[in-house]
Amino acid sequence: MRKTIIGVMGPGDTASQKDRENAFALGKLIASNGWVLLSGGGCKGAMDAVNKGAKSANGLTVGILFANDHLDLSEAVDIAIVSGMGSARNNINVLSSDVVIACGLAAGTASEICLTLKAEKHVVILNDNELSKPFFTDLGKDLTHIAKDPQDAIEQVKRILASVKEPASAAK
Amino acid sequence: MRKTIIGVMGPGDTASQKDRENAFALGKLIASNGWVLLSGGGCKGAMDAVNKGAKSANGLTVGILFANDHLDLSEAVDIAIVSGMGSARNNINVLSSDVVIACGLAAGTASEICLTLKAEKHVVILNDNELSKPFFTDLGKDLTHIAKDPQDAIEQVKRILASVKEPASAAK
Amino acid sequence: MRKTIIGVMGPGDTASQKDRENAFALGKLIASNGWVLLSGGGCKGAMDAVNKGAKSANGLTVGILFANDHLDLSEAVDIAIVSGMGSARNNINVLSSDVVIACGLAAGTASEICLTLKAEKHVVILNDNELSKPFFTDLGKDLTHIAKDPQDAIEQVKRILASVKEPASAAK
Amino acid sequence: MRKTIIGVMGPGDTASQKDRENAFALGKLIASNGWVLLSGGGCKGAMDAVNKGAKSANGLTVGILFANDHLDLSEAVDIAIVSGMGSARNNINVLSSDVVIACGLAAGTASEICLTLKAEKHVVILNDNELSKPFFTDLGKDLTHIAKDPQDAIEQVKRILASVKEPASAAK
Repeated sequence: MRKTIIGVMGPGDTASQKDRENAFALGKLIASNGWVLLSGGGCKGAMDAVNKGAKSANGLTVGILFANDHLDLSEAVDIAIVSGMGSARNNINVLSSDVVIACGLAAGTASEICLTLKAEKHVVILNDNELSKPFFTDLGKDLTHIAKDPQDAIEQVKRILASVKEPASAAK
Repeated sequence: MRKTIIGVMGPGDTASQKDRENAFALGKLIASNGWVLLSGGGCKGAMDAVNKGAKSANGLTVGILFANDHLDLSEAVDIAIVSGMGSARNNINVLSSDVVIACGLAAGTASEICLTLKAEKHVVILNDNELSKPFFTDLGKDLTHIAKDPQDAIEQVKRILASVKEPASAAK
Repeated sequence: MRKTIIGVMGPGDTASQKDRENAFALGKLIASNGWVLLSGGGCKGAMDAVNKGAKSANGLTVGILFANDHLDLSEAVDIAIVSGMGSARNNINVLSSDVVIACGLAAGTASEICLTLKAEKHVVILNDNELSKPFFTDLGKDLTHIAKDPQDAIEQVKRILASVKEPASAAK
Repeated sequence: MRKTIIGVMGPGDTASQKDRENAFALGKLIASNGWVLLSGGGCKGAMDAVNKGAKSANGLTVGILFANDHLDLSEAVDIAIVSGMGSARNNINVLSSDVVIACGLAAGTASEICLTLKAEKHVVILNDNELSKPFFTDLGKDLTHIAKDPQDAIEQVKRILASVKEPASAAK
């Protein structure tokens, strides 16, 4: 039986210290809830921190890599999926996640929020970019959820999972 | 020698009448300038209108289809590329375009703006979504250009093409 | 109205002199018949030769590139589609072609023959690898066609196009 | 630290009884060796059987799905990656696997053997298609390995893993 997957998308190089702290906390909470963590798998920024957070709570971590090798893989990723397709893999990240959390914001992360909405799936946004919140709320309507901190993000994920009738077939 | 490709991304079903008019005008201007038009190739909304505009000026039109067949293909597309990969094809749209114009706004179009910025390429935005303009300007900095109408969008494309030293190898 | 696209797949670096000659002849014949040529777009071997052949007869050439830039693009490609997804683009090559011709043989070309058969589309094989012919005939049954030279390959393409009821929507 | 992933590719609908038995045995042996199983994730044929075999030995199973939903997912898959990109996902299967085993043969499986060789990675072939063995041996040279039964396939995987200097970064 497939496991519930929570995707956390976030910047690599350009992540702030706050983004990394939030990502670590999210990873830890995701693992504590028994969910599998899925991310872009990189060895920097929010991508690296969320995997380290999940491993700190003995979680299982999946990384869908941008590149066609393992050179930029976070050492905290258990299952490395080598996409070899660059940013086109962002769509796989969102299709494979029961719920997507966007932690921090850069162009790649923003594309993942948009692709989640395009797939008619729920996204929880956690960042301090004040322009992004009204923009994505307007774009996604009921599918966009704004979180004030990692704990709040996880509470929203729980509510979303409970509202989806068939969580095991939620991805479209 | 490869031809210059201008990508126009825009909504299908949810395009407004204004979006369709702008898309038709953009297609016509792109063809008049001797550029190849690239789009998502669909038979509705801005995607359909931009191809019809280009054909009205005897342009060459390329559509990169979402689906794995030709069922939703605009009749004004000359070259249909069947991606079979859903929204992941959005990244191919932007990588293949020398400059991207986003005409109208929905989740898929917004993902293409983000993917253009992620690829460090220029995007010209033409819509009446007032939340989108400060958001994408902040996200993309010098790579984001706001247009007030189709003619202005094309003038900006010309300036961008002129500023790129090697337009024939501009895509990254 | 979309144009008929004939895909020619073949090796780059490892193409033989005979492969290159066959590819050039195929490109010329495809253009002479008024079809669009689609290939992997590379600047070497059969990929380069087929595009040069098509341009020698004033054809229109489309290349679906392996890489995320134009560095390895054949100078005889008019429309460069930048996939950025490596060998995964092989599936786009076959889905976008009304009929696929495999000219020469290497691992990438062989994957394209297999993907064509997987998509339940017709493939014409032109090479001197005697192990490949019984193997692909057994694998593809009525979908596999063996050609003895470029002219024969084109005659087989004509028969296949005539047998497909709706050539404008043949790709699956 | 990433786990070693062994990919098993094989037919769905068209798998023989022998293919399914071999796949089940392979899955069980992969799990017994502490490796993660990766497959196409489908609910039929060799794809389903290999996952059931791995779960019978308490293994961890990853499925990279052809579709954009979970409808055809094997119930024995733990981690479902929803590619939404059809057969183009075959390249992800091979790039993500430290070693690929092809169990049974159909067009999709054959494409995965070819893509493995294209990526310059090792593939172990287990089937009773006598045309396939000389063909793939000629195509792949030292990268192609023919197995006589599941136990032999696993012994060959062990030798390949031992010969690769850096198994944790073997995928290209």
